[in-house]
Amino acid sequence: MGSFRGHALPGTYFFLMSFWWIIKSILKYVSKKQKRICYLGTKASTQRVELVEGIILIFMALSGIGGEQFLNGGPSLILYKEGQWNQLDGWHHCTMYFFFGLMGVSKVLCSTINSLPGSLVKLMMSNALFVEGFIFYNHTHGREMLDIFVHQMLCLVVLLAGIVSFLEFLTKNNVLLELLRSSLLMLQGTWFWQVAFVLYPPNGSPKWDLKDHNNRMFLSICLCWHYAFTYMIIGVSCVFVTWLVKWRLRRLCPSEVGLLKNTEREQESEEEV
Amino acid sequence: MGSFRGHALPGTYFFLMSFWWIIKSILKYVSKKQKRICYLGTKASTQRVELVEGIILIFMALSGIGGEQFLNGGPSLILYKEGQWNQLDGWHHCTMYFFFGLMGVSKVLCSTINSLPGSLVKLMMSNALFVEGFIFYNHTHGREMLDIFVHQMLCLVVLLAGIVSFLEFLTKNNVLLELLRSSLLMLQGTWFWQVAFVLYPPNGSPKWDLKDHNNRMFLSICLCWHYAFTYMIIGVSCVFVTWLVKWRLRRLCPSEVGLLKNTEREQESEEEV
Amino acid sequence: MGSFRGHALPGTYFFLMSFWWIIKSILKYVSKKQKRICYLGTKASTQRVELVEGIILIFMALSGIGGEQFLNGGPSLILYKEGQWNQLDGWHHCTMYFFFGLMGVSKVLCSTINSLPGSLVKLMMSNALFVEGFIFYNHTHGREMLDIFVHQMLCLVVLLAGIVSFLEFLTKNNVLLELLRSSLLMLQGTWFWQVAFVLYPPNGSPKWDLKDHNNRMFLSICLCWHYAFTYMIIGVSCVFVTWLVKWRLRRLCPSEVGLLKNTEREQESEEEV
Amino acid sequence: MGSFRGHALPGTYFFLMSFWWIIKSILKYVSKKQKRICYLGTKASTQRVELVEGIILIFMALSGIGGEQFLNGGPSLILYKEGQWNQLDGWHHCTMYFFFGLMGVSKVLCSTINSLPGSLVKLMMSNALFVEGFIFYNHTHGREMLDIFVHQMLCLVVLLAGIVSFLEFLTKNNVLLELLRSSLLMLQGTWFWQVAFVLYPPNGSPKWDLKDHNNRMFLSICLCWHYAFTYMIIGVSCVFVTWLVKWRLRRLCPSEVGLLKNTEREQESEEEV
Repeated sequence: MGSFRGHALPGTYFFLMSFWWIIKSILKYVSKKQKRICYLGTKASTQRVELVEGIILIFMALSGIGGEQFLNGGPSLILYKEGQWNQLDGWHHCTMYFFFGLMGVSKVLCSTINSLPGSLVKLMMSNALFVEGFIFYNHTHGREMLDIFVHQMLCLVVLLAGIVSFLEFLTKNNVLLELLRSSLLMLQGTWFWQVAFVLYPPNGSPKWDLKDHNNRMFLSICLCWHYAFTYMIIGVSCVFVTWLVKWRLRRLCPSEVGLLKNTEREQESEEEV
Repeated sequence: MGSFRGHALPGTYFFLMSFWWIIKSILKYVSKKQKRICYLGTKASTQRVELVEGIILIFMALSGIGGEQFLNGGPSLILYKEGQWNQLDGWHHCTMYFFFGLMGVSKVLCSTINSLPGSLVKLMMSNALFVEGFIFYNHTHGREMLDIFVHQMLCLVVLLAGIVSFLEFLTKNNVLLELLRSSLLMLQGTWFWQVAFVLYPPNGSPKWDLKDHNNRMFLSICLCWHYAFTYMIIGVSCVFVTWLVKWRLRRLCPSEVGLLKNTEREQESEEEV
Repeated sequence: MGSFRGHALPGTYFFLMSFWWIIKSILKYVSKKQKRICYLGTKASTQRVELVEGIILIFMALSGIGGEQFLNGGPSLILYKEGQWNQLDGWHHCTMYFFFGLMGVSKVLCSTINSLPGSLVKLMMSNALFVEGFIFYNHTHGREMLDIFVHQMLCLVVLLAGIVSFLEFLTKNNVLLELLRSSLLMLQGTWFWQVAFVLYPPNGSPKWDLKDHNNRMFLSICLCWHYAFTYMIIGVSCVFVTWLVKWRLRRLCPSEVGLLKNTEREQESEEEV
Repeated sequence: MGSFRGHALPGTYFFLMSFWWIIKSILKYVSKKQKRICYLGTKASTQRVELVEGIILIFMALSGIGGEQFLNGGPSLILYKEGQWNQLDGWHHCTMYFFFGLMGVSKVLCSTINSLPGSLVKLMMSNALFVEGFIFYNHTHGREMLDIFVHQMLCLVVLLAGIVSFLEFLTKNNVLLELLRSSLLMLQGTWFWQVAFVLYPPNGSPKWDLKDHNNRMFLSICLCWHYAFTYMIIGVSCVFVTWLVKWRLRRLCPSEVGLLKNTEREQESEEEV
């Protein structure tokens, strides 16, 4: 990892995964509201999507582990060399990737074996996030102040995402909890990019002063702006998906839309009474 | 902010907002108990109230951001000037206001678009409070002991309010949770005033010794007294609103009151059996 | 407080209150299991008990405040004297008593006004405990190591009791949560006595070395033994109350006991099928 | 304890207990899914299993207390000797064993007395774990960095297990929560072995440098690998138990299996609709 690319890669993974989950959550919610469309509705298609997601997650984890171990002079699977531990940082990162890989495996299993409880995936996600947070917490001994700070922020975001995943595991089908978790994962992704720019400025940009406390104060609000940015993405996705579903609906069965609107109006007037 | 007015303004905002929410919660609860009155009862009027609240929140946030940026020699939207960050304190405060503005936007959206889940507002409130707490936590580097202490207390109150908001988001319609959250917001409001008096004593009052530990011990119980004060306000509001609702009821339909009392008595006797 | 009696008094209060609550919880649970007895069963008698409890709580709070303010050279309601705060420790204790008094007031109100939600009392108890924990946390500046430690333990027990009370407020009618909360309150009571013996050894006993870390290690398991002791009391109460209820039942309606046993057996055999 | 065996013994106890609980949870879940088998299904047999578990737990606790008190020059029930506390470490361990013994007692009571609430066992388990975590937290004063670290990790795992037990107590019959708790207990068991190997390397292995921070970084991922290992055990148990149940089913009633499969298929097709 200790490089720009090493931080940009997981950042991109988290961003893409969470973006897809945001789209999926909204799509599921909107489809449910407009009950007649069976886009993503059948159990079989949902399971196929889960299966593909699981395989992609496993691929991501394997590529991450491979990159850590063999690129840029990684430890190459050697844990102990010449009387001391061999590049523990690389092993830390591999362990994190491994647990996300386990989550991918649980996704594959849950989508193929019916008798497994569906919330297993949520539990494994929460586990993977807690393990990641735990490792980041024990990761930054003896570094500069700002380096520690940006990793602590990462740790905070990861642990919050883990807690929200765990709440998802305990409750069922709360679309806002899903979006909250995805937004925190996306925040993690963009924050990985921020860390890459702060610690390894590319193309000869000037280095950040890692001891200046003003930088720390700036980065603490910067994290909030990243978070506001994920909200913006969720908002735009929401508008786009709703429009898409309505457009498909209109093309497929224009007569039913009118009916839908009527029933909606009736429901509302009933609620008002 | 760094002035008496800069602390009194958000204090007033929080106090007024939470006072209104206390009144609203009690009104809703009392109206529900006396089922026949439709004061605030129709969905349309509730939505109109939410809309107005949202617009007021947005206005408050914008006025706060404007004041921070352009009054008292604020940063004037310039983030980086002459090789260093430009007045990060002001930007911190703007970020907090911005997230409360987002909550206002979500209120407006939820009151105009029916398909949005109603608990979105609670989630955004909890988010805004967590962001505020996070920023306050990273806000007081290098200040005096008492200055840090009063901001830590603010941070504690804000985070507790955020947790209660999040619980409100997870559960539904618990009037006591609503009042608890409002009381914590009101505590925040009055505490802002207390901070203003401690750090920027107006009209030439003697300055507080920011290093004296006795002041800290006093302020820690002072916070509890503020909290007791919010209880008093809730109690008085409760009595007043109940009297108001009963008085309206008596004027509107004096015959029904008698009926209500009878049914109440019957219910009680049934419960006793 | 700063004396043996000052710690023994609240300790006795907490012990007696929690002992009564343990008896009450078990009595309610056993009576419910044996549905036909209406001991404590009518709503009216429950409310009368609540009313008396509330009045006793208010009396305890007032006696505590009075003792703190006027006995042993207390502050006598003077907060600020000769340019400095006047005996803030006493004011700290008064604030704690005050919030327990508020809980008593809420008990009285809930038992007289039917429209108030019943869980208000639980919320006020949790509030009183959180306030107590908060004040203890800010109470021990500049004291000896062991003095701080025993107060931290108090603070821990109080906050745990506050969390359990809050869970009771969120859930309904879980007898084990009630007993857990009562056991933590009883632990607090016996720990107050322990603190009194450690810090103010009576009758010329040798003083504890407040800097010796072995004392700290002993007191940390001592807390656990206190807790085991509350379990023993709960166990004995349980046996005694069950025996009492069955004895009353047998005396009042000996024929029904046989019926009860039969129905019990039937239920069990049904469950086994 | 302060020896290899003193850490290996509780490690083995926790490993065996949690392994049995993993098997039991999976067996219960699989049996429920295949409703017709009454393996472990009758209330009487469940109670008998609980009774035996309780007795084994009590035996484990007593053997642990006995070993601590009388083997290897333990305190032999003498708490205070020659003006100072006598081997408080041993008393710490005894207190932990004692609370697990209490849990065994509650298991025995719940399985013999029908009127006790079943979740009492969960509460006592959570209590025992919290007490253990609390004692470990106050256990390592003045030791080397790595010694403190491995005990902190133990403390973390124990407290997490305690929280999960408490969640089990609050919710009902969530097989994944049960497995999560068992996996954390198994992690505790294997970690005890790890601690034994780190602090008391057997057979003249080289000693670990207790001040080297690299060792700490290695042990932090080592904990994660232990956790991954418990997952593997759960996975293998799951496959084995499912195969066992199906095999028993096939041998007992081969005709019903076909029926089961048909109904399963029907259910699925219904869900897809």
